[in-house]
Parts: sequence; C-alpha cells; structure tokens
Amino acid sequence: MSVIRHPSRRAFLAGLATAAVGSAISGRRALTQGLPARTDATTLRQRIEALSVFGRPAGGTFADGVSRVAYSDADVAGRGYVLNLMRAAGLDPLIDPAGNIFGRRAGTDASLPPILFGSHIDSVPNGGNFDGDLGSLASLGVIEALTAANLRTRHPLEMVVWSAEESATFIGLNGSRIVAGEVKPSDMDAVSNGITRADAIRKIGGDPRRIMDAPRSRGAHHCYLELHIEQGSTLEREGIPIGVVEGIVSIDRHQVTVRGFANHAGTTPMTERQDALLAASHLAIAVRQIVTSEPGRQVGTVGRLEVTPNSPNVIPGMVQLTVELRDLSPEKLVRLADQIRRRAAEIARDTQTTIEFTSGSHTPPAMAAEDVRRAIERSAARVGAATMTMPSGAGHDAQMMARLSPMGMIFVPSVRGISHSPLELTRWEDCARGGDVLLGAILDMDRV
Amino acid sequence: MSVIRHPSRRAFLAGLATAAVGSAISGRRALTQGLPARTDATTLRQRIEALSVFGRPAGGTFADGVSRVAYSDADVAGRGYVLNLMRAAGLDPLIDPAGNIFGRRAGTDASLPPILFGSHIDSVPNGGNFDGDLGSLASLGVIEALTAANLRTRHPLEMVVWSAEESATFIGLNGSRIVAGEVKPSDMDAVSNGITRADAIRKIGGDPRRIMDAPRSRGAHHCYLELHIEQGSTLEREGIPIGVVEGIVSIDRHQVTVRGFANHAGTTPMTERQDALLAASHLAIAVRQIVTSEPGRQVGTVGRLEVTPNSPNVIPGMVQLTVELRDLSPEKLVRLADQIRRRAAEIARDTQTTIEFTSGSHTPPAMAAEDVRRAIERSAARVGAATMTMPSGAGHDAQMMARLSPMGMIFVPSVRGISHSPLELTRWEDCARGGDVLLGAILDMDRV
Repeated sequence: MSVIRHPSRRAFLAGLATAAVGSAISGRRALTQGLPARTDATTLRQRIEALSVFGRPAGGTFADGVSRVAYSDADVAGRGYVLNLMRAAGLDPLIDPAGNIFGRRAGTDASLPPILFGSHIDSVPNGGNFDGDLGSLASLGVIEALTAANLRTRHPLEMVVWSAEESATFIGLNGSRIVAGEVKPSDMDAVSNGITRADAIRKIGGDPRRIMDAPRSRGAHHCYLELHIEQGSTLEREGIPIGVVEGIVSIDRHQVTVRGFANHAGTTPMTERQDALLAASHLAIAVRQIVTSEPGRQVGTVGRLEVTPNSPNVIPGMVQLTVELRDLSPEKLVRLADQIRRRAAEIARDTQTTIEFTSGSHTPPAMAAEDVRRAIERSAARVGAATMTMPSGAGHDAQMMARLSPMGMIFVPSVRGISHSPLELTRWEDCARGGDVLLGAILDMDRV
Repeated sequence: MSVIRHPSRRAFLAGLATAAVGSAISGRRALTQGLPARTDATTLRQRIEALSVFGRPAGGTFADGVSRVAYSDADVAGRGYVLNLMRAAGLDPLIDPAGNIFGRRAGTDASLPPILFGSHIDSVPNGGNFDGDLGSLASLGVIEALTAANLRTRHPLEMVVWSAEESATFIGLNGSRIVAGEVKPSDMDAVSNGITRADAIRKIGGDPRRIMDAPRSRGAHHCYLELHIEQGSTLEREGIPIGVVEGIVSIDRHQVTVRGFANHAGTTPMTERQDALLAASHLAIAVRQIVTSEPGRQVGTVGRLEVTPNSPNVIPGMVQLTVELRDLSPEKLVRLADQIRRRAAEIARDTQTTIEFTSGSHTPPAMAAEDVRRAIERSAARVGAATMTMPSGAGHDAQMMARLSPMGMIFVPSVRGISHSPLELTRWEDCARGGDVLLGAILDMDRV
C-alpha cells in the first residue's frame, strides 16, 4: 500500500543539476530556496558524535555503539549534555515530573497550542547512535535554524526529549506514556534493578510526588512530529530518502504453552513420544507460513522460546514461547491469530501434545493524521526528496502522542535495516535531510 | 530385531492354572519347582518401601518419589540402611576407595573369579523408587535366598551397590567407571556444589587417597549381571514380563549452533529475515524425520535448545541446540548424523542462516555376552516368564562392567514407560519375578 511520490520536475532537475557540479553540501545549499531556513548538517553530525560518548563501551569508538539505558549514569550524563545545548540555544528547558525534558520557543499567538516535536536519547543495551538521538538533536537544530533565520511561528514550538523510551528498565511506563495519561500514583513504587521507579525518576530530575501533574490533556498540542530512523530496510531497498509514516502498527503478543511429556531420551521409542519441542517447531514454522500467506506488510515472530527441562537426554516436556504479530490493521491480526490457533490445534493432535494460548497483550495501532502526512510530503518536495508512505513496525513516543493531537512521523533510511545494534547507521546526508523535512513540516503545520 | 520367547507349554499352562485358582503369590509358589530357590517377594517390597524414606520430599509418601542424589545426606543414610541389611544377611560389606559397596559370599572353589551382580541406590533429583533400588535390593535377596536354601555356588558371589550412578553431581565419573579403570588421581580435585570429589567420596566412606587401587583388571569377574527397570514402555506394550538386554546403546551427542541475524521484530520484513529459530525448528523436525526414516529402534532427540537474545520483539539471532542419537550400531549413528548434516545445509541455505556442528561426544555401545543372555532366557523359562531381547536405550553400570567380563542385564516392565520421575513404577510381581530370574541366571552361569 505504499505510495511513492517524486518531487516536482523542476525541483528534481535543479537538484540533479547542482549535484552534477558541486558537493552534496553545496547541492543542499542550492536547494535552500525551497525552504526559508535549513538546519546545520555539520553541527548535527558533531552533536550525534558527541552524545555517543555517554554510554560508549570503555575504549570503544563511535562504531562500538552505546549502552545509555534509561536512568543509568550514562543517561543522566547524556541528558546533561542536551540540556546544556538547549540552554545555549536560548531555550529554558524544563524537566516535567516524569523526567521528560521540554524546551519552548514562543510563537506570535500565545493563545494557540504548541507544535510539539522531539524524540528520546536513552538506548537499549548495546544499541546504536541514531535511534532517538537523531530526532532529539535535529529538533534542537530546527529551533536554532528558525532563530538564525529570524523566523517566528504563529504557534509556540516545543521540543521534547522523552524519558525512558526504550523501556529497558521499568518496562512499559515511559515518559510519553505518562504524559498521555497512563499513570497512577502506585506506579512509582515499582522496583527494577533494585531501585524504585520514584528514585529512578528523581535521579533524572523528575518529581515522582507530582507525577499526576505530568499528563497533558487531549488537544494540548496543535500536532506532534517526530523524526526517526526507519530501523528497517525498506527505504534503502527502494532508494527513497524520506518515509512518511501512515501509522504505528498494532502489536498482538500471545504467550503459548506447549505441553508434552518429559521422558528418557534413550528408552522412549520415537512412536511413544510427546515431544513439546517438536510441536513448538511445527508451530514456529506455521506462524511464518500463515503470516506470509496473504499480501501486506504484516510480520509475525517467535522471538522467545524456553524448553523444560532443557537437557540433552530428556525429551522436552514443556515449551513456552511467544508469538508476536504486527500490522496496521487489528482485524488482520485477529484473523492471523485465528489461523495460527487452528493450525496449533492440528499440530497438538498430530504430536500428542497440548498447545495453549495462555495470555496475550494488545496494543492498538496509532494512525498518523492526514494533514500532518501531507505537510511532511510537501516539505520533502521542497527539498527535492522523494517520499513513500509506510507503516512503522516499531513503537515510538509518537504512538502515545497520537492520543492527544494529530501526529506525524518522518523516517530516514537505516543502512541494511539494522537497529538496536552498534551496527545501526544512517548516512549523514540522510540525517540532515530528515532535519530539514522536519523543519519544513513544522512551518507547514504552523499555517493551518 | 527383538526375539520373543515363550516358556514351555507345560510351564505356561501350570502358571495359568495356578493364577486361575490362587493369588499371584501362590501362583509364584506353584512354579517354584523350576528353580531350586526363590527370592522373597514380600521382603523385597518392604525394603524398596523402607529405602524410599531416605530422600523422600518432606511430608510426602512413596508416590512422591525420591531425591537421593549421590553424596547427599540422603544418599549416605540410604547406604547405611543397605549396609545394615547386608550385615544382617551375613555379608561383611566393604566400601572400596571409590565408595562402591561390595558384599562377598564364598563359593566352593576359591580359585574361581566371582560372579558380580548389583545396581545402585542413588537417584536423579525428583526421581523414582525403582531405578537402581530394585536391582540392588533384589541382589541382596538372591544371596539370602541361596543361604536360606543352603545352596553353595562354585564361584564366589559378589553383590555391589555402585556409587553415584546417576551422575547428578560430578558428571561422568561414577563408581563403576572408576572400577573399569577410567580414573586418574587429579580427578579427585574436581569441584561440584562447592566440595571436591575427594571430600564427596570421603563422605560416603571411600578413600580418595587410594583411588588408584579401585580399578579392577580384565577378567576380574566370571561375569556381571544387573536387574533393572526398563525405563521404557516396550515390555508393557508387548505384554512381556522379562527383557533380555542385547546391549547398551551407543550415544552420539552433537552440539549445533545456528546463526542468523538478530533484528527488530517490527521493522524487519518477513522476506529480509535470517531467523535462527526458524532454521532450528526445521532442523528439529528433520532430526525426527531422518531418525524414523529407516526401520529399527534408533532414537534421536533435540533435548536442549537455547535462543539468543530470546526476546519477544527480536528476531532470534542465534540458537544453540543438542542432537542426541542412540542405537546399538555406531555405524547407523554415523549414517544418520551424515543425513542430518546434509539436511542442515539445505535448511541453512533456505533460511539464510549458518548451521554448524561445533562439537560432539561418542559413547560406544556395550554388548551383552551371548552366554549370559542365554542364561537369563533359560532362567526366565524356568519361572514361566516370556522374554524378549531388546537394547537398553539408557546407560547403566553394566556398560562399564562389560569392559572387564561378560555382561548381561535383565529388564522388568516400567508402567507407562515412565522413569526419572516420581511416577516411576514397576508392579511388585514384576519386581519379584526379576529377582528370581536374576537368581536363576546366576546359578546357570555358575555351571559354566
């Protein structure tokens, strides 16, 4: 269902002509005419490299990635670096009770709600230097570029660095989720890695006693925009520099228990076995077959699988596994799960096991707003960048913000589609182009 | 390749007639004519029940099984119980340097090597009350029955309770292996559960400083006999009370590493995946297909499987698993492994993964001696019991003793084939019948 748009013929030819005579940077300058201001590509790169030091493995380089897990000392240090940059840019950053960092630039009409944009800077363990960092630092670059060009928007602009997006600790309650209203006072008592969530939030400058002041109301923002790396390989494969997210997929996660009978691997004939791992193997293959049996971008994954008793000389008596399904359409996920359950029943019968879908979780999709998508597409056209619409298979803070206001996301290509890995990489020119498209989309939305 | 033998028509009819008019016990008495002595079925049952107390779960009953792991306090207590029984039977039990308990009854010709028979009393954690216990206590019953009948053999008789057969701690160096000669002084320095093997052996009355005196030489025994529960379901399914072991299977164990590429389960399209668990699933199914593709009793098991990183939202990047193959024929195991490797190469190609057979272990088969097998069959015929020849899919102390002298094993049925479980069960009449067949086989071998 992807729609690929190429910029106008004139903008395209201008870009080609400039590329033929100058460097990539001068090529970008030549196209500045399309936008009233441009972000600083060199500064963006320097800042992404500087931020990478906080959480870098000892003795490592940029290529060794980062472990800047939420609430860690590295996270605190990285946030300090960004707070200083925001202050230097004339913003007066505030940390909300949940630990999110906000920086506001006034607009010409104080009665209008702000345009909110940003991302996060915490990482998964052994993560990369672009996931979150790009969107956070490019957002600051947008504000600086507007100030440098002496451009004032009608709406206030608010940039945000969300706390704990990766949920590497205190799974499931990150900063944007709290702002979306999914928090209750007792959540502060949860313990992870030996400390309470209250202490973790206090460590990054939040105020757990005022946590119920963090949620914002519906309509608090004019819109929310987020620039992010794709984390998949679609843009690179298609040769398209800008992805316009049509929505963040729905995620259905099923916990499955396969029960056979643990018995002696030497004395139990093949015909007498009730091998839970054999049944689980058939199920894992069936998940792939069923998910790929109809057109579309849906994905299905058996990512976790635990064998009991897990000994070389004992036939597996039990296997517990997860089946995770993702697609923009919740109806499709229900249909796929029904097919998987039916196949599981056949597998159980054939292998003399039982297969039980014990529990599950459902995350609804978050659709991008039509007008924000159009603003992104127009902005991309102004910098001569082709776009394609695509779902986001990964969750993002934007998912939560879609509950409060219209939302849109800009994707830039991930080299080889690798993410959550030190190998995560987005080319510097793609990073810069993403910042410019964000700037243009913000200006476009400001006119609405 | 099993051979089923039924007893003579007369013995059979006598058994049927008696069974029709009396209890199982009186039926057994009516057949006593076939052997010059019979073991005491009631005493055997009482002793198996009494031994079950040592290592029983707190507050449990006989049906809750036993955790009498080698070198544990329960093991020491259980051994004390058996030592007392042996003393009461007029044996003068000795503990060898490895902790094995031997009890000797003189024969009429002191120049002849002893007939050795016995089993073990240690258990796996959460094991049953028959594995090892039956053979150990029935061996004592054989000596008592011969003494009660005032029968003297030509060969000395020696019963043994092997130490640490289950290898639940200090894996791989149990008492019978030491007697077979596979020991060196530095083995005493190994540490498990915080104590050295030397201290563990000392705890059960062995003498680690004299460990090199424990090995016996080839020809040290006239033969070795062991009564054991089948631990499989073949005898029960076939309705045959006595199994004559033709050999203990060869075991080939392969460690396999499947490498794919760990990537985001939401952003990586199905076509771009290198899913190590998908490949491993195909391999587990292939193992079963290949093992069952030719006739015979060979078995193949994927018992252990570990996924990395094992997270619901990450495509598995690596899977490590074991493939264990067992059969009497080592050549068959090599042939099966070759087929599995070829299939693995196809799977790796189809799933864009690599599958590497990183290491393996080979345990050669141990064949029972033809004359000992015949002695067991004749003995069974004298008590009116049908027999079938069968491999032992499980390892036993007999495997080690086959290196020193002719070896034979007697199997009795395991209800539902369950073993290494509190549900392990062998009917009392089958236990008693096994003891009698052991007695008859010893007398038969004594004549050779």
